[in-house]
Amino acid sequence: MTFKTAATIASFGGKLLKLTHTASSTGCEMALNLYLPPQAIRNGQKVPVLFYLSGLTCTGDNCAEKGFFQYGASQKGIAIVYPDTSPRGLKIEGEDDAYDFGSGAGFYIDATAAPWSTNYKMETYITSELPKSLFSSFSELDSSRVSITGHSMGGHGALTLFLKNPGMYKSVSAFAPIANPSNCPWGEKAFKGYLGEDREIWKKHDATELIKGWKGDLDILIDVGTGDNFYKQKQLLPENFVEAAKASGNDKGLVVRYQDGYDHSYYFISTFATDHINHAAKYLFR
Amino acid sequence: MTFKTAATIASFGGKLLKLTHTASSTGCEMALNLYLPPQAIRNGQKVPVLFYLSGLTCTGDNCAEKGFFQYGASQKGIAIVYPDTSPRGLKIEGEDDAYDFGSGAGFYIDATAAPWSTNYKMETYITSELPKSLFSSFSELDSSRVSITGHSMGGHGALTLFLKNPGMYKSVSAFAPIANPSNCPWGEKAFKGYLGEDREIWKKHDATELIKGWKGDLDILIDVGTGDNFYKQKQLLPENFVEAAKASGNDKGLVVRYQDGYDHSYYFISTFATDHINHAAKYLFR
Repeated sequence: MTFKTAATIASFGGKLLKLTHTASSTGCEMALNLYLPPQAIRNGQKVPVLFYLSGLTCTGDNCAEKGFFQYGASQKGIAIVYPDTSPRGLKIEGEDDAYDFGSGAGFYIDATAAPWSTNYKMETYITSELPKSLFSSFSELDSSRVSITGHSMGGHGALTLFLKNPGMYKSVSAFAPIANPSNCPWGEKAFKGYLGEDREIWKKHDATELIKGWKGDLDILIDVGTGDNFYKQKQLLPENFVEAAKASGNDKGLVVRYQDGYDHSYYFISTFATDHINHAAKYLFR
Repeated sequence: MTFKTAATIASFGGKLLKLTHTASSTGCEMALNLYLPPQAIRNGQKVPVLFYLSGLTCTGDNCAEKGFFQYGASQKGIAIVYPDTSPRGLKIEGEDDAYDFGSGAGFYIDATAAPWSTNYKMETYITSELPKSLFSSFSELDSSRVSITGHSMGGHGALTLFLKNPGMYKSVSAFAPIANPSNCPWGEKAFKGYLGEDREIWKKHDATELIKGWKGDLDILIDVGTGDNFYKQKQLLPENFVEAAKASGNDKGLVVRYQDGYDHSYYFISTFATDHINHAAKYLFR
């Protein structure tokens, strides 16, 4: 349950901690970054927490370096958790063979198909083990105020973990999410590998299916770049998510912004990071 | 004189252009990034220009990805030029042998010692060929309003090019500059290699010597992190620069801020980037 701190880096008046811990859900050492804003350090007060789930190929480092979340987080007084995107170094056959499956591509679900089902428990890790470990180790973090966001695979992770767990997160937003994985190449490959062939089971892990069953209010901010090649290649399918929200009457609070000319990179994320911080802050400080 | 555009990337409402051109001063193809803020694109107006000179091992990419100058530049309406740090790919013996000499380590001077003197003309490239090429190719850029900043080796480059060329730049600032290269291991190695053994000649390229001869007003902003290992190892020596400024009466407008706990990384640069944009804006828009 305890973390090792590999480095403490000053950033925007706060501290970015490069952490590792041994996770039982994934059966391996997991690395992550935790940003503590100046409000947590100077005042010793409890601050709310925003989980940022990264996309394919990333670790928790990419967005901490290039996402510009620390700027807005330092203004508002929000801690940011940047977890890794999968277990690593397990020596499962094929784990490092592709950028879109295995290492760096855990898809924030609990795998049920062998050989992945033993360790690829990213849903349990992100929603249970990691927050529990963080809240017991860092008294600065307020366990009653947690929001979630993410990019691409992580944008889908944020949407699904929010929709699967009513009340767990105060708000959700996403950058260029893989919004309907059951119907795109990335998602089909991952779901087949981690969950097996039964598409009925996939529905429990697909944001476009999950939003159909949502009861209550929603306020979801999604940004998608119109110059995003993965959007053009129909890996993201935000339209399917919007359509499902409309069909189920869950579109009132859904804002999907198509950002002119933006791509899938951290240049896109950094440009709109503060908007997503502000979206979370509305609920974390209400 | 013309540029090839390898990519155009949307960032903070403007465009980051990944450019290459064949430079005669360095005798090779040079890569750079040019950020055009939204004001240059939307209004078709001329915008002032801030040159950002990078440190050892970097290219023009690192700060464009991790420095967050685009945020402040988009607010103020300033174009940013991120040049490379040396010629590359020349097949000069030893050019890739060390991180602190040769490729990635041009030190923004014109080499006079063989074999570097043929191509390592970074001072001419940065102060003459590159701006001329940019101003003739990009009518959005206002050649009459140019400022300069930089980090580490590039912080020293900014200080020296400003001090050597009164009137060329409207303002100067620096992050963790190598402030007195004649007296630190990085600088001694570079000056010996590029300029030869005569330390009298080195003085013409050392900011701590150059500030002694400055006539007129000065307003220099320098940030140095107290947790910067290179500062602790006496590679930076900002105290020598301050002392030389005081001894010559040139310290009135010199502000050196020691930032508590910050290191030498882009986490440090990004935290204070907007302060340096604002410092430049004072003079670019006066």
